[in-house]
Amino acid sequence: MTNKKEINAGIIIIGNEILSGRTKDTNTSTLAVWLNSIGIKVAEVRVIPDIEDTIINTVNKFRERFNYVFTSGGIGPTHDDITSSSVAKAFNVTYGIHKEAFEILKKYYAPGEFNEGRQKMAKLPVEASLILNPTSGAPGFYLENVFCLPGVPSILKAMLGGIQNLISGGDPILSSTINLRTVESEIAESLSNVQNKNQDVEIGSYPFFRAGKLGVSLVLRSTDQKKIDLCNNEILQFVKNKKIDIIDL
Amino acid sequence: MTNKKEINAGIIIIGNEILSGRTKDTNTSTLAVWLNSIGIKVAEVRVIPDIEDTIINTVNKFRERFNYVFTSGGIGPTHDDITSSSVAKAFNVTYGIHKEAFEILKKYYAPGEFNEGRQKMAKLPVEASLILNPTSGAPGFYLENVFCLPGVPSILKAMLGGIQNLISGGDPILSSTINLRTVESEIAESLSNVQNKNQDVEIGSYPFFRAGKLGVSLVLRSTDQKKIDLCNNEILQFVKNKKIDIIDL
Repeated sequence: MTNKKEINAGIIIIGNEILSGRTKDTNTSTLAVWLNSIGIKVAEVRVIPDIEDTIINTVNKFRERFNYVFTSGGIGPTHDDITSSSVAKAFNVTYGIHKEAFEILKKYYAPGEFNEGRQKMAKLPVEASLILNPTSGAPGFYLENVFCLPGVPSILKAMLGGIQNLISGGDPILSSTINLRTVESEIAESLSNVQNKNQDVEIGSYPFFRAGKLGVSLVLRSTDQKKIDLCNNEILQFVKNKKIDIIDL
Repeated sequence: MTNKKEINAGIIIIGNEILSGRTKDTNTSTLAVWLNSIGIKVAEVRVIPDIEDTIINTVNKFRERFNYVFTSGGIGPTHDDITSSSVAKAFNVTYGIHKEAFEILKKYYAPGEFNEGRQKMAKLPVEASLILNPTSGAPGFYLENVFCLPGVPSILKAMLGGIQNLISGGDPILSSTINLRTVESEIAESLSNVQNKNQDVEIGSYPFFRAGKLGVSLVLRSTDQKKIDLCNNEILQFVKNKKIDIIDL
């Protein structure tokens, strides 16, 4: 591995709907792909329930431990949206009407429609900076290294552009995938040898079952394309020797 | 709310492929829906990398904190599969060839094909109990309240039936499995009809690929054995009419 300091992030998915299994989380994948592209590695993800103490403790652990923290979910206007107030408590700062957020929401709604329920979306840690929301009025926010985003996948995605300039990552993490018509036990030893010779490339081996057939995806990850290419060639060599088919997915 | 003590579980998803965003986790949802159905609530999910210390620490925290712990991923034969050895360290027990697992795998492979790479799949905490794998040879395992399952979603799903009786939540749910030499599209409609007529039996259909051939495992679940038997008979009827072979796995 290189000596360059790795920049990392933790993701906190807040919401009982993920824990109940009712909804499959896709925000982790969205955030991770985007973070990798700006040179930040996701070190850990936690899915936690809508419980104040749990949110406070998790946010405080994560903001100490990781360079950046992203939360998803719980910033809407209903009774179970407790992320904003919990994050205020985690930072020990005042939770109340955030003037800028209030103005944004007031403009967003037609006259008379910015009712009390909607005003709750303007209640934030009052000293937070806003993350603007291009698809609906309600903003996200950040405090120090903690970025609080909504749970709705399309909205979360649309808000990432607005925080890109606030975050400094390292070199983008590049990846290359080889899909093989084989099983892991067939290639385990050869793959170990390649991994041992290519310490700067992280090689992941992922079996799959698709369209009725078994296969293995090998994913090579590194910030250095040349190292990926070298590693890739060594894999292609043993694949050829073993007469394993390479497939397109 | 009843006064009955809540039984909870923690889920640990182990694997860089989820943290990189390349793969969207669906095992959380699968496990959560299943656990809910047997009266167990998922309290927390963590997605962690293939790093030994992280796995050990997370397993040890979770097994103290929750009634049940489920891990997913990292029990295959390649260099990045370190869950089994890490869990052995978490419990401070010996990691080595598990005799029963070794015998299962030896029988599963053709003579001469149970090579060194494949034998790694028999390396487990030696005192662990096995979780049989109806879709491929390699078993999962459990130690006390920690259940270690594979990461491939279809295989994980197929193995849940085998641990249902080891876990006490609400009413025990009984199950029965029929393995067929067919593909799902061949039986989908008939199976839907049986399911519609047998609302108290949950019918699961899990395709598999074994010894070069495709098949489907049908898993019937209910708290009522008589209802399972009735449903089973209806399935056997259409299986007979369609001249589909029933196979032993």
